[in-house]
Formats: sequence, structure tokens, C-alpha cells
Amino acid sequence: MRYSLAEIAARIGGEVIGDKDFIVTGIRSLESAGADDLAFAEEKFLPQAGASRAGALLVPRAADNLTQHLIICAQPFQAAGMLMAEIDAEAQKIPHTIAESATIGSGVKLGDNLHIGPGAVISDNAIIGDNCRIYAHTYIGKEVVIGNDTHIYPGVVIREGCRIGNRVIIHPNSVIGSDGFGFLQIAGRNVKIPQIGQVIIEDEVEIGALCTVNRAALDMTVIGRGSKLDDHVHIGHGVTTGSEAIMCAQVGLSGGVKIGDRVMLGPRVGSADHISIGDGARLMAGTQAAKSLAGEIDYGGTPAIPVKQSLRQIMAATHLPKDRSRLAVLEKKVEELEQLLKQKTQ
Amino acid sequence: MRYSLAEIAARIGGEVIGDKDFIVTGIRSLESAGADDLAFAEEKFLPQAGASRAGALLVPRAADNLTQHLIICAQPFQAAGMLMAEIDAEAQKIPHTIAESATIGSGVKLGDNLHIGPGAVISDNAIIGDNCRIYAHTYIGKEVVIGNDTHIYPGVVIREGCRIGNRVIIHPNSVIGSDGFGFLQIAGRNVKIPQIGQVIIEDEVEIGALCTVNRAALDMTVIGRGSKLDDHVHIGHGVTTGSEAIMCAQVGLSGGVKIGDRVMLGPRVGSADHISIGDGARLMAGTQAAKSLAGEIDYGGTPAIPVKQSLRQIMAATHLPKDRSRLAVLEKKVEELEQLLKQKTQ
Amino acid sequence: MRYSLAEIAARIGGEVIGDKDFIVTGIRSLESAGADDLAFAEEKFLPQAGASRAGALLVPRAADNLTQHLIICAQPFQAAGMLMAEIDAEAQKIPHTIAESATIGSGVKLGDNLHIGPGAVISDNAIIGDNCRIYAHTYIGKEVVIGNDTHIYPGVVIREGCRIGNRVIIHPNSVIGSDGFGFLQIAGRNVKIPQIGQVIIEDEVEIGALCTVNRAALDMTVIGRGSKLDDHVHIGHGVTTGSEAIMCAQVGLSGGVKIGDRVMLGPRVGSADHISIGDGARLMAGTQAAKSLAGEIDYGGTPAIPVKQSLRQIMAATHLPKDRSRLAVLEKKVEELEQLLKQKTQ
Repeated sequence: MRYSLAEIAARIGGEVIGDKDFIVTGIRSLESAGADDLAFAEEKFLPQAGASRAGALLVPRAADNLTQHLIICAQPFQAAGMLMAEIDAEAQKIPHTIAESATIGSGVKLGDNLHIGPGAVISDNAIIGDNCRIYAHTYIGKEVVIGNDTHIYPGVVIREGCRIGNRVIIHPNSVIGSDGFGFLQIAGRNVKIPQIGQVIIEDEVEIGALCTVNRAALDMTVIGRGSKLDDHVHIGHGVTTGSEAIMCAQVGLSGGVKIGDRVMLGPRVGSADHISIGDGARLMAGTQAAKSLAGEIDYGGTPAIPVKQSLRQIMAATHLPKDRSRLAVLEKKVEELEQLLKQKTQ
Repeated sequence: MRYSLAEIAARIGGEVIGDKDFIVTGIRSLESAGADDLAFAEEKFLPQAGASRAGALLVPRAADNLTQHLIICAQPFQAAGMLMAEIDAEAQKIPHTIAESATIGSGVKLGDNLHIGPGAVISDNAIIGDNCRIYAHTYIGKEVVIGNDTHIYPGVVIREGCRIGNRVIIHPNSVIGSDGFGFLQIAGRNVKIPQIGQVIIEDEVEIGALCTVNRAALDMTVIGRGSKLDDHVHIGHGVTTGSEAIMCAQVGLSGGVKIGDRVMLGPRVGSADHISIGDGARLMAGTQAAKSLAGEIDYGGTPAIPVKQSLRQIMAATHLPKDRSRLAVLEKKVEELEQLLKQKTQ
Repeated sequence: MRYSLAEIAARIGGEVIGDKDFIVTGIRSLESAGADDLAFAEEKFLPQAGASRAGALLVPRAADNLTQHLIICAQPFQAAGMLMAEIDAEAQKIPHTIAESATIGSGVKLGDNLHIGPGAVISDNAIIGDNCRIYAHTYIGKEVVIGNDTHIYPGVVIREGCRIGNRVIIHPNSVIGSDGFGFLQIAGRNVKIPQIGQVIIEDEVEIGALCTVNRAALDMTVIGRGSKLDDHVHIGHGVTTGSEAIMCAQVGLSGGVKIGDRVMLGPRVGSADHISIGDGARLMAGTQAAKSLAGEIDYGGTPAIPVKQSLRQIMAATHLPKDRSRLAVLEKKVEELEQLLKQKTQ
């Protein structure tokens, strides 16, 4: 990255106060930016922005404490986001070529403008849309269908028959369409229930690194449009999620769970199988959902209860050792009172 | 899949009521089956089976509410399982060939009828039995021994010297025989304890995607015959499990733990190191075992206690905020009583 | 391995009592060692060492109950560690060659004495130091810098621009530099915040199998010198750790967390985002840190509190069902006392 402030202002629709020809070579946070960097600050961070060693600042307005070169724009974070996206695109630029060492099966249909990396395996009858990146060492199973503009990072495994939408991102070494976990106990043995369903990943879904989204036993596991999964998330067989859900790292959803739209699951949230979680419900970090939960409510605890109750319960529990002593003291006093009254009555 | 009901009835030993030549092209659940699908229902699900849009049903008996074509058989679920296994085998059919891009080390012994996928690495002196599938991008270390009929899915890494049994399944990107986690603190530095033990995976074990089974420091980490691990399970160095154990997703067992036969560990169960869990013990989701646990008992909680106690404790905890108020009220009343009695006595 | 006791004694500076020409072919624990094995016992394990079937023992002194051949040395465990390191080095020996099937990008700088395994991808302008092992199916992104003597096990993915130090070990299928998890909710959609920061892994860090260390949004995610991560550890974007930290399996640190030197995190420890944990703090298994924690203290619980308090609280909680009954009994008694006093007063 190497831009003059004038170029940046033009691109984001801002105005330079200071040297228009000043060159910045990176975007960093207020704390770590250096003399060649651009940093940004929303209104509420302007007081501390003056202390930043950034050479230039993206800010909503000038202020006395800001001695850096400035670019003034209405929404600094969003403007920075546009620049960050350009930097990201540049950093991840990759040739639209198909590596010689890739294995392309029979009957495969490939779209235009693809990157298929070294060693990638595209199995028979798979269909890949336009502008996709199928990075090195990926394994795309038989009859998998992938839409347009989708990025499949190195080492991802997508097993046979799964369907991946448009503008989907799957981060490295995740596994889509692996067998669900289903066994019958017959005569003391664990007998495998074949898992013949599939997985559907809808448009604009992002799946973190090292996630598992298991194929359904019979029907479909579905990750709804625009949902985002952080790393190490486990989605059991037959789970369906609504659109625009957020699942933080290390979440685990057991088989058959139904998640509504816009549900937010904090880190390490877990669920029992076959429960449902309503639209807009939010589960704090570590919440364990044992039963179905109504939508538009915040939950916490093990098992999940409304978060205010959960916090009151946690707070009350911190007093437990002391409260036990108080209880014992009371018991003694009441016994003494009983004795005393008994004596008086006699 | 494309079968007439007569063909299916013949294969599973059932009887058709309705059109013997009716063709089904899939097996689905009662809820999602369509006009070309076969669904199945055990006795207790017959009431709702009438509403299924399935073209045909596998059921234990005819009933007035069932207007679909029927196949009558004693055990519908088991019969469906047979068909599902056939469909699964067909969907996963793969040529018994060794990819040109695979790397086969010196001294390797390969059985008959193998699939070795693109880019697979079989290191020096490894031994692979008959009918195995060693998928793309797998890494089989030096002197690894793999039995017959075993499937190693894409991206799995098995490090040097590990021994894998017959009819074992290891799902994508799992890691077997990686170093156990052992360090000595010497003069403020973490000094690595070399991990020179091995891993033994016995016959009929199934290991989910993205699991780790670490090599022992000195001896053996053992996963016992018929045990099944879901995804994201972590097995520390020197753990040994009995046969037919079940470990759900995201379970973590620390070093040296001994697990008995038929133990069932729910999702996210964890354990302290070097404890033992007796035969047939069952740990509910999220249970954390801090000490050794006797067999044939169900456990819950953190730390693990018998599940009934754990549920009573969880239930009691929900009353904590209210109970604290009750305690405060009582303290006040007792103080008043004491005052009153004191006055009376004077 | 095949050594005479004389050879071992010479190497570790010990003294043989028994047959100097006795040959051992392995090192095993006291419990599992056989007639050809060497086992070792520190002073406190000498009583049970007599029962070991080991052919020879490494011990701090002779004792009446020890009938095996002995090697006497001051620190048996450390001496055994030296031998284990040799055995480990031998077991993992690998040719210093670059596989023909590896893909080396343009502008790549390769050090001396490298192993680059089959199918490894080294992207444009990456720099690899001397004596590194870059195993099969690894993906090293553009402009990644790797120091000397570093081992990158099979299937590891390191994305563009990350910097890996000297003598680092990264175990199989881990992912370094994947996007951090950052989204803005705009008009009901989850809009990705580009992640343009990097990851720095300092010297002597060891990262387990199937870990994720995410790139920062803007700045740097840093794993400090000598820190050790077990398997399945998740490090969010912008986390920084001090030196010589220990993180056990399945730990998850949310974005922006700051960890001090020598911090120890037990299995399944989690943290809220943007908190700090002071030097030398130790968090027991499963502890969830919701707020910043002072150093040099041991913590437990959810949320984290000093471990002694946490244990007292856990202990008190086990009495909850009984204490609720005690509370109800007291309420009844106090009511009766109140009635009685009222009657008396009338």
C-alpha cells in the first residue's frame, strides 16, 4: 500500500487538512500506527487520537489536539473499512490459473476466471461457478456444487454432494459434509447409522478455520444466508440455521438443532440436540442450551436462562460460603430462642 | 438410487401393500420426504406418518391413516439402515487405484484392492492392509501399520509408528500420533519432554473430523475396539479407552486418563489428567471430571457428581437470589425475637 | 534404539551396577517396560520400581528392592529425557531434500539444509531459514518469513505475511494467520471487516495440532517467546501473549486479549475479549475469565475468581439442596416462635 492523502480523500469522498501529497504506507490502530501510517478515530476516540504517532488520521472533524495530517470524512470506520478491503484484496491477489498439479475429475464443470491451487482435487461431476478460488490441497467431493465468487481456502474438505452458495468463504482445513455422529447400540456394539443426507451452505456464509459442518443422516444440514461461523465451530447432522446468524469460536450444536435468524452465539456456547433457538436470541459466552429457547431474549448460564437471572444467580453464588455460615448461626440462635421460650413456658 | 417397492421388499424381507412397481429415488425423513421418496416409521410414529408426503412408507403394519404405498416389515429403522448403507456405499464409490501423484516411500508394503488418492504420502516402511482407502492429501508416517478395510479420509495425518486396526474410519483432517503436551519448567523456561510413545487405534474404531489423538510420552495411547469419537475430540498422551466407548463432539481427555468399556461422554465433557472412569459410566454434556469416577453411574456437573444430585443442585441454584432474601428476612426476624425476649426477661 | 548400559552411562554421566554389556532396545515407563527396556525412577518412586519388569533401571541410588541392572545418576528423569530426545530425533529423521512435487513461488528465498515435503506450497517472496522442515501438504503464503530450525508439520496453513521465529514447532493441520472474526451489523446484514493485520510467532514457540492463531484486524497477533500451545487452541485476532506461557488443549482466547509472561491456562479455559491476564497468573481447567485478572494468582470458576474462593464456592454449592430445606425449616420455626411470643404478649 502506498497512497497520497489526496488519493485516499478522493476515493472515500473526504477532505484533506494538511499535506495532500503526504504518503501513507499502511493502516494501523491509533496505538500502534507509526509516522508512515494512517489511523482512524470515530468522534468518541478523538481525545486520545492526538497522542497517536500516526502520520495521518481519518477523523469526522478537525480538533485542537490533532496535529497530524487529517482526512475529514463522515464515517471514518466505514471509510477505513473500504481501504482495508483494498489492501486485503491486494495482499490476497492470486493468479486465475488452474495448477498443473490439480486433479480434475470427469464430468467436472468449471466456471470462468478460476484459481485452482496446487494439488487441489475436484472430483467427478462437481460444478464450480465463476471467479472462485479453490486453494491448494482442497478436496472437493463428487457432485459438489459451488456457486460464483466463493473462496475455499487451503486444506478444506467438502464431501460428496454438498452444495455451497455464492460469495461464500470457507477458511483453512474446515470439513464440510463429514458423516454425522449416529450409532445404534445393538448387542453391546456401536453400529453405524449411514449418513446419506447433505449439507447446504447458502450465499454469503463465512465459515472459520477448522470447523465441521456434518452431513445430515437423511435430509439436509443448512447454514442460512449471511451466517458467519468463527473457528472451531461444530455443526451436527441435520442442524439448520436461519440467515445472518453469528457463531463465535468453539460453539457446538448437536444434531437436529434449529437456529433462527440473527441468532448470536458467544464463544463456547453448546446445545442439546433437537432443540430450537428463536430469531434474534443471543447466548452469552459459554451458555449451554438444554431446552428450546424463545427468540429476541438474551441468555446465559448452564442450563440457559435469561441473562439477567443468570447474572443474579452467579452473583448470589459468590456469597454461598458466607451464607452457609449465616444459616448455621441462625439455626443456633433459633434453637436458643426455642430453649429459652420452653424454659419460660415451664 | 432408483428402486421399485418390490425390489426393496425382496431385499429387506418385507411385503408390499399398494403398487409393487412404484419407483422411489431416495430415502428421507417423514417430514421432508416427497412423492418419489421412501420414508420409514416405527410403531410410535405411525400416527404422524399419515401426514407425510412420502410416496411410500416402510412401516411395521398397515393402519387406516396411511394412504401411501406401504412396505411392511418387522423393524423399519433397521431395514431403512440397510438401504441407507447401500446408498452410502454407492455415493462414496471410488476407484481402487493408486494416484500417480501419491508418494510411496521405500519399503512400503501395500495390500490388495487399495485406493490411494492424489497427493497422498505413504512414508518409508509403512504397511497398508487390503481394501483400504487412503484418500487425497493424507500423510502416513514412517512404519505406520494400517489393517484391512480401513478408510482414512482426506487430510488426515498419522505420524510415525502408529498402529491402526481393521475396519477403522478416520474422518478428514484428524491428526493421530502428534506429540503429547509435556514440558518441564527449568530456570523459567518450558523445556520439551520428547514424546516417543505411540498410538494404537483398535479394530472398528471411528474417529470424527478434526480430532487429535496424541502419542504417549513413553508407552501407548490406546483407543479401544469399537469406540466412536465425534468431531473435535482431543485425546491426550497416554490415554487408554476400553471397547465400545462413545465420545461426543469437543470432548477433551487430559494425559493418562483411563476410560472403561462402554463409557459414554456427552459433548464438551472434559477430564483432569490421570483419572479413571469406570465401565459403563455416562457423563452428561459438559461434565468436567476432576477425580476418578466409578462405573455404571450417570454423572453431571463441574466437578462431576451423580447426575440426580447434579440436577438437584442446578435446580436449587436457580432459587439462590430469592433464598438470599429469605435468609436476610429471617436474620431480621430472629434479631427482633431476640430483642423482644430480652426485653421480656428484663 | 539399541544401546548397552555402558554406552548409556557414558552418555549421561552415570555408573552401571550390574551387567555393563546388557542391551536395552527401548525406554518405557515402570509399569509397561519389559525385559529389553530401560525404565527410570526418581527417589520417590523407588519403592515401586522393584516390581517393574524392566531389564534395567535409571535410578538415583541402589536399593535392596532393586534387582534389575541399574544405572545410577543424579537426575534420572532428565537423563532419560536426553535419551528420549535422541530416540525422537532418530524416529523423525527425514532427508534434507526438496520434493519434486513441492511448489516454490517466485522470489522465494530458501535456507540451507531444508526438508520440503511432497506437495508443499511455498508462495511468492516467502523466506525460509536454515535447517527447517516444511512437511508435506503445508501451505506457506506470500511473503511469510520463517526463521531457522523450525518444523512445520503436514497440513499446516500459514497465510500471507505472517512471521515465524527460530526453533518453532507447529503441529499438523494448524492454521496461522486466518482472518479474525469481525463483522459490522449494517441494515440487518453481517458485513465483514477486512482483516489486514498479521501474526508473529516468536522463537521457541510450540503450537499443537489443529490450533488457530488468527491475524489481527489491523496490527499484530503475537505469541511470545517460548510459549507452548496444546491442541485445538484458538487465539483470536490481536491477542498478544508474553513469553513462556502455557495453554492447554481447547483453550479459547477472544480478540485483543493480553496475556502476561509465564501465564498458565488449563484445558478449556476461555476469556472475554480485550481483557488482560497478568504475569504468572494460573487459570485452572475450565476457568472462564470475564474481566482482567491480576498476575501471580491462581484462578478458577465461571467467571474467574481466586481458586480458593472458587473451591469454597463449589463445595458450598454441593450443600444447596440440603441448605434449602434447612432454610425452610428455620422459616417455619421462626414463624412458630413469632406466634408463640405473640400469644404470650397478649
